[in-house]
Amino acid sequence: MRILGIDPGIAIVGFGFIDKLGSKLVPVQYGSIQTEAHTDPSIRLREVYEATQQLIDKYKPDAMAIEKLFFNRNVTTAFTVAQARGVMILAGVQAGLTIAEYTPLQVKQAVVGYGKAEKHQVQEMVKMFLKLSAVPKPDDVADALAVAVCHAHSSSMQTMINKVVKR
Amino acid sequence: MRILGIDPGIAIVGFGFIDKLGSKLVPVQYGSIQTEAHTDPSIRLREVYEATQQLIDKYKPDAMAIEKLFFNRNVTTAFTVAQARGVMILAGVQAGLTIAEYTPLQVKQAVVGYGKAEKHQVQEMVKMFLKLSAVPKPDDVADALAVAVCHAHSSSMQTMINKVVKR
Repeated sequence: MRILGIDPGIAIVGFGFIDKLGSKLVPVQYGSIQTEAHTDPSIRLREVYEATQQLIDKYKPDAMAIEKLFFNRNVTTAFTVAQARGVMILAGVQAGLTIAEYTPLQVKQAVVGYGKAEKHQVQEMVKMFLKLSAVPKPDDVADALAVAVCHAHSSSMQTMINKVVKR
Repeated sequence: MRILGIDPGIAIVGFGFIDKLGSKLVPVQYGSIQTEAHTDPSIRLREVYEATQQLIDKYKPDAMAIEKLFFNRNVTTAFTVAQARGVMILAGVQAGLTIAEYTPLQVKQAVVGYGKAEKHQVQEMVKMFLKLSAVPKPDDVADALAVAVCHAHSSSMQTMINKVVKR
């Protein structure tokens, strides 16, 4: 199963594709989509949408795992990010992907084992799980890979639960 | 100039097309896009996007006027609406429309003349401006027409300002 993890944003969108081969996680490609601050907001939305479509076309994931927004910053920024999130989910659903959403708490729990983990602990675990030589930069990329790892672990858990139920 | 006014939402999106012919405003078509609560959220986003595309294809507006979100309700609902707003703006920008955004305050000021107008006053003014026999229902439709009227008035104002500047 190939998973596209996304850390949503409008200036910087982190993305990370990973393959889940049995219990092994293999990084495929990761990076960021960036849009310019002085570009019209509606054009930036289209840029994020088209870049997401192109990535999906190229790397053909089965699932999109995207971080849920939580509300602790500027309202206007949060709404802008939610709009960008909307067009990315649209690109995913149009390509037939399973869409999974995780809160930052769920990501930390799945990656580090507890919900109050620090950012650098999450990043170190991502680096370890994916056998990377360094933590990817900017943080948005590491966050996107963390959501992908979270989905890989959650879907393993789901498979285990299904097996237990089937017995 | 044909304007598409939108009152964004996920369960109900109000829309209204009006033509601005000189100082005259003529209603073209109005109604709502509705999605089912038990449908997957990502599918609902796609439904809103596709319905918006179809409306734009059919009525060929020049501009989209869409209400800005303000923050006074449930956070999750607000984010969901922002995502839907994102895919509608995407449909507009993809069709080459001018995108204009107005706060509820700006809509009230443009339609009734003051920002603290009651909902029913806005609706009555919309009915009067567009020579409708009744206030359109649900409220989302009347709100969408109000945003369209707001844009018609604001763009007239902008034209007047440009004329003054040119002298």
